Amino acid sequence: MGESFPMVGGDSPFSYAKNSNPQKEAADGAKAMLITAITENLEIGQVKNSFCIADLGCSIGPNTFHAVKNIIEAVDQKYKTEGLISQIPNFQVFFSDHVSNDFNTLFTTLPSDRQYFAAGVPGSFYGRLFPEASLHVIHSSYALHWLSKVPQEILDENSPAWNKGRIDYSSAPSEVGEAYSAQYAKDMESFLAARAQELVPGGMVALLIPGRPRGTLPAESSLGPLFEPLESALLDMANEGILSQERVDSFNFPIYSPSPEELEGLVERNGYFETVRMDLLQGTIRPLLSAQECRAGFEGILRKHFGSEIIEELFERYAKEVAGRPPLHDISDGLSIGLFVLLKRKVTA
Amino acid sequence: MGESFPMVGGDSPFSYAKNSNPQKEAADGAKAMLITAITENLEIGQVKNSFCIADLGCSIGPNTFHAVKNIIEAVDQKYKTEGLISQIPNFQVFFSDHVSNDFNTLFTTLPSDRQYFAAGVPGSFYGRLFPEASLHVIHSSYALHWLSKVPQEILDENSPAWNKGRIDYSSAPSEVGEAYSAQYAKDMESFLAARAQELVPGGMVALLIPGRPRGTLPAESSLGPLFEPLESALLDMANEGILSQERVDSFNFPIYSPSPEELEGLVERNGYFETVRMDLLQGTIRPLLSAQECRAGFEGILRKHFGSEIIEELFERYAKEVAGRPPLHDISDGLSIGLFVLLKRKVTA
Repeated sequence: MGESFPMVGGDSPFSYAKNSNPQKEAADGAKAMLITAITENLEIGQVKNSFCIADLGCSIGPNTFHAVKNIIEAVDQKYKTEGLISQIPNFQVFFSDHVSNDFNTLFTTLPSDRQYFAAGVPGSFYGRLFPEASLHVIHSSYALHWLSKVPQEILDENSPAWNKGRIDYSSAPSEVGEAYSAQYAKDMESFLAARAQELVPGGMVALLIPGRPRGTLPAESSLGPLFEPLESALLDMANEGILSQERVDSFNFPIYSPSPEELEGLVERNGYFETVRMDLLQGTIRPLLSAQECRAGFEGILRKHFGSEIIEELFERYAKEVAGRPPLHDISDGLSIGLFVLLKRKVTA
Repeated sequence: MGESFPMVGGDSPFSYAKNSNPQKEAADGAKAMLITAITENLEIGQVKNSFCIADLGCSIGPNTFHAVKNIIEAVDQKYKTEGLISQIPNFQVFFSDHVSNDFNTLFTTLPSDRQYFAAGVPGSFYGRLFPEASLHVIHSSYALHWLSKVPQEILDENSPAWNKGRIDYSSAPSEVGEAYSAQYAKDMESFLAARAQELVPGGMVALLIPGRPRGTLPAESSLGPLFEPLESALLDMANEGILSQERVDSFNFPIYSPSPEELEGLVERNGYFETVRMDLLQGTIRPLLSAQECRAGFEGILRKHFGSEIIEELFERYAKEVAGRPPLHDISDGLSIGLFVLLKRKVTA
C-alpha cells in the first residue's frame, strides 16, 4: 500500500499544527471556488439521512477543520436557498490520513462548536477507505502530491532515469520526470477507482493540489525550487563527509505536481467522473519555507532515510540557506501552481 | 458531559491491551449469546448499502476486535442461511471511546485481515456520537458500569449519603446505594435516548455489563469485593500519614452494577426499545485482579485523584494485599454478575 510520511504531530514548535500557514493560505484562496462548486453542483435528492464528508490527508488540523466547515456551510446554504431548511441532514465527517498520523491530537483539538459528528479513518487514500456509495463529498487539500512511493527506476544506477545528486525531478533529465509521471498515473488510477466506489452517484471530489501550467514538462514546474535549499544543505553535508554521497543519491521526494491535461487524461481513463472544474489558483509570491515549516512537513521522511542524528544540523543549515533569499514566484520561478479540481461521480458510468 | 477515565494505553506491561483477560473471558462466555441474538433478530430488510456497527467504550483492543469479528460473522451467516450471499453488504465499524482514549494505538493494532472499513469516534456515550438512523448494531462490553460522574451527594458531609472511608457503595448505608442508583438512572436515560436516535428501526443494542441478581439491593452485590484490597491499601496509607484521610474520603469509584429490573424499568421509561434478552451469565469463580490488571483499569482515575507520586507504592501494597487471597465467587461473595442485554429499536415508538 506504499509508504507513509506523516506530518509532525503534537503541538511542539515543529508540529504541523503550528506550521501549516502556506497550506492555509492556498486553501483560503480556494474557499470561494469550493463553496461555489458545491452550491452549483450538489444534488440534494441524493442525500438520505445524513450527509457524509471525507477529508483525505487531513493531517492534524487546523486546516482540515476550516475546509470541513466551509463545505458544511455551503451545503447548508444550498438547502436554505432551495427552501428546504427542514430537510437539512445530519453531517458526518471522516478525517482520514495514514495510520501513523497523530489522530489523538486531531481528536483532542476538534472544534468544540462543530456542527457534525466526527470520525477518524486510518489508511492510505490509494486504497479503499469507505463502504460503497457511503460519501457525498470527498475533499483533499495539498495531500495528493504525495506519491505512494518513489518510482523505482530513479533509484536504479543502470536506468536512464537514475536521479543521482538530486532530491526531486526539477532540472533533471526528462526520463526522471517521466518516471515520476508514470508513478503518479498508477497512483491516481488507484485513487480514482477507490473514490468512484465510495461516492454516491452525483457525489463530488474536490481537490486542491500543486500542479503545473498546461503544456509544460514535469521538470519545468515542480516543487523543486521549494526543495532547493534542502538539497543544497544535504549536498554540502555529503561534500563535508557528514553524510555519504550514496545516502543523498538514494533520497528522493515522492512528490509530483501534474499538468491539467495529465489529470484530465487520468480522469477520462477511469471513466466514472466528469470533470466539472479544473482551475488554476491565482499565481502567488511566497517566501521559501522557514526551517520550522520545512521541518513540520518533511522531518518524518528525512529522519527515516538519513537517521535522527543529522536532523538538527540539517535544519540549522537549511535555516542559513533560506535566510535572506528572495521569495518565489509561482510561475516565473518554475514553482508549481495551485490547481482546484472538481469531479462529479457520474450516475451511470 | 462528565469525566473520562481512560484505560492505560500503549503496550507497556501495565497497558489495558496486555491486561484485559477478565473482560475477554466474560466476552467469550457471551459470544454464543451474541451470535444467537443477532442471527435470530436481525432484519436484513433494514440494511441498505453498508452494515454499520459501533463498539462503545472500545478501549484499545484486542477485545473490541474479537467482539466485532463475532458480530460480523453472525451477520454474514444470517445472509448465507437465507440464501442471500450476493447481497452481503460492506461492513463499517466505528470504534468509539472517550477523546482521551489512545486511538493511535487502536489504529496501529487493527487486525490486518479485517473484513470491514474501520473508523474511530471520540466522545462520551452519554451523548450523541452518530447521525440519525446510521447504525445497525451497537455493542458495548464492560464499559457501561462507568457512570458519567460520582453522585454528588456522596461527597457531601451533610448528606445521609456521605460515603466516608469507602471507595464504592458496597457495605455502605442504603442512601449511598440509592445515590449511585439515581446517577445510573440519569446516565442510562441519556445513553438510551442517544442510541434510539442513532439506530435504524429494528437495529440492535447488545450490552455486556456487570449487574446484580433480581431482588437485591445495590450494596448486596457490586464490584466492591474486587475493590476491597485497593480500599484497604488506601486506608493503610491514610493511617500511616502518606495520604490525607480527606483525600481517601473524597475518592469514590464512579461505577455501578444494576439489577435486571432496574434496567428493565429504564428501558421501559425510554420507550424506544423492546427488551429481547436479559440473561445472567454463568456464575464464575475468579481470582482477584492482579496488581497489573488493576493498574491497567484504574491507574488513570487513581493518578488523577491522588497524584502520580503515590502510584508505585499503592500498587506495591495492592500486590501484597491480594497475594494468597482466595478467589471470589460471583454471588456468594456478593460480587456482581454478568448481564447480557439485547435491546431492539422499535420500528415505531
